[in-house]
Amino acid sequence: MAAIDTNSLSAVENPAELYDGANVLVTGGLGFLGSNLGFALAAAGASVTLVDSLLPQYGGNPHNIEGIQGKVAVSYTDVRDSYAMAYLISRHDFIFNFAGQVSHRDSIDDPLTDLEINTSASLNLLELVRKNNPGASVVYAGTRQVYGRPEYLPVDEKHPLHPTDANGISNLAAEMYHGMYAELHGIRATSLRMTNTYGPRQRLAGTTQAFVPIFVRKAFRDETITIYGDGNQRRDFVYVTDAVDAFLRAGRCADAVGKIMNLGHPDPMGLKDFADLLCEVVGTGRVALAPWPPDYEKIDIGDYYGSFELASKTLAWRPTVGVKDGLTRTIEFYRPRIAEYM
Amino acid sequence: MAAIDTNSLSAVENPAELYDGANVLVTGGLGFLGSNLGFALAAAGASVTLVDSLLPQYGGNPHNIEGIQGKVAVSYTDVRDSYAMAYLISRHDFIFNFAGQVSHRDSIDDPLTDLEINTSASLNLLELVRKNNPGASVVYAGTRQVYGRPEYLPVDEKHPLHPTDANGISNLAAEMYHGMYAELHGIRATSLRMTNTYGPRQRLAGTTQAFVPIFVRKAFRDETITIYGDGNQRRDFVYVTDAVDAFLRAGRCADAVGKIMNLGHPDPMGLKDFADLLCEVVGTGRVALAPWPPDYEKIDIGDYYGSFELASKTLAWRPTVGVKDGLTRTIEFYRPRIAEYM
Repeated sequence: MAAIDTNSLSAVENPAELYDGANVLVTGGLGFLGSNLGFALAAAGASVTLVDSLLPQYGGNPHNIEGIQGKVAVSYTDVRDSYAMAYLISRHDFIFNFAGQVSHRDSIDDPLTDLEINTSASLNLLELVRKNNPGASVVYAGTRQVYGRPEYLPVDEKHPLHPTDANGISNLAAEMYHGMYAELHGIRATSLRMTNTYGPRQRLAGTTQAFVPIFVRKAFRDETITIYGDGNQRRDFVYVTDAVDAFLRAGRCADAVGKIMNLGHPDPMGLKDFADLLCEVVGTGRVALAPWPPDYEKIDIGDYYGSFELASKTLAWRPTVGVKDGLTRTIEFYRPRIAEYM
Repeated sequence: MAAIDTNSLSAVENPAELYDGANVLVTGGLGFLGSNLGFALAAAGASVTLVDSLLPQYGGNPHNIEGIQGKVAVSYTDVRDSYAMAYLISRHDFIFNFAGQVSHRDSIDDPLTDLEINTSASLNLLELVRKNNPGASVVYAGTRQVYGRPEYLPVDEKHPLHPTDANGISNLAAEMYHGMYAELHGIRATSLRMTNTYGPRQRLAGTTQAFVPIFVRKAFRDETITIYGDGNQRRDFVYVTDAVDAFLRAGRCADAVGKIMNLGHPDPMGLKDFADLLCEVVGTGRVALAPWPPDYEKIDIGDYYGSFELASKTLAWRPTVGVKDGLTRTIEFYRPRIAEYM
């Protein structure tokens, strides 16, 4: 299945249709991003294998594929398992590499596991692609964390790289390996740097992951959402279907190979405004401001929003869902099945 | 032993004397940089432990400590061995973290081992420092490879990070962990980014390491030194005693904590001129130019020389040995013992 160029992509409304009949492997496939991608691909007639080892505390959740069971294959495989991964990679031409440890706090408490899962496993995956299926397309889910505290806004891809925690470092190294495999070995590898992504199928339990799911959980429980600082820290929020759209475009795009591109949203929003809106949509919960705890302040990055001009140009992509609409759809999803995500 | 500031350092002529009576651990201690540091420290009355596992193909060489046996302790330990390293780290207040895989080619052929030795082992070392000896000073030997092809010259520390091979990525991640441990955990960690360092006690065997030792070997064997391209690619060459001087300053300098600083030399030189001069000093060998082999060209970086202004200001350091003098001293060292290094 030949890659297509940016021009052809710009005429595509639903990029999932570009995968009709294709063999697609998604690591972290029972997680937030992976399962949403799985839904889009299954609906479009792709032959999908979702890989997940359901590590406790991570994002994998068997409930995430309710509605597509039987339409996708699931392999309960640890991405660090070279033999199983070699076989899977040899049989799939599109690989979405989403498996990862995403908690900032956990990465600081146990940085070696973070490095192993985020970097070593990704590097191993790339080696397996090089040896077993060098024509495969690989798209990595990178993160805005590689920039650290913004020196200017919006942050573009030329911004200095200064991750403030172990998770940012392990992700950056993994992303750089993807770039290197493209440059040096001709592998069709791409990375998209995600910013705050939200929507259905995100794990709401735990205290160590991203703030959006914590906010959602607290709102549902009618608890107080505590925001550190003045609450005006701005972020760009990307609804998960928009993110999935970008990844689908990247996997099929010849012009994306070797590129590392920000995702983003044109309307950044303050954290307090976001949380207030969330409570309004849920109908419960409230927001309070509090001073920064010292340990957290060290890894806080202040305002962040990114320029996604490169992704727009390369992938003919732009986000279509605003925060109000996205939160409404998110809460509609969780309301009848909230117990499965807490 | 309290750290001292830049002002006090500027009055210091021989920074090894700042370690009189100190407990110093050097990983990669039987290698090129480690053993030269060991000589300086032993002469100054430090209590030195050199750690090396003498992995084949790496830089460790038991001949490297001829002249200081009995004055330094040697532990044949793999830096990936957590238990042994925990004990060693708990008993040393200054740690020079030099152990590493340094071959570009090997890092491409076996990137997972490269990642394990360069990144995982360094991260583990930092974790052990945090848990067992949080007051220790840690100095890492970084590399100019993190910059990739220079976008401007001289390259300063704000230059974009774009390593072109796996070795550059694994080193960058390790270096970033050092920075993170300084920022987040208050560890006294520093990194110096080395450029082409040359001098006594560098491994001359093998074809996969840096070019200087290959050139030296070929000159001694009266072979032809082949340089790809027009031979005018400039590099800055740092003689090993100058590099050692910088590391010694960094380990004692309060103002160096959390900083990442280039080493460099004010007189960059073309590769052909360097090789011609080398042959002249050795008295044998010759230089020929050849077109780039395609695989090598991809990881070539063109001209490189770095700005070492930050290191000069912070460490009161500057290189004192020029190429002619440095090569003369290098060849004087190898001539009577060339067999031990081939």
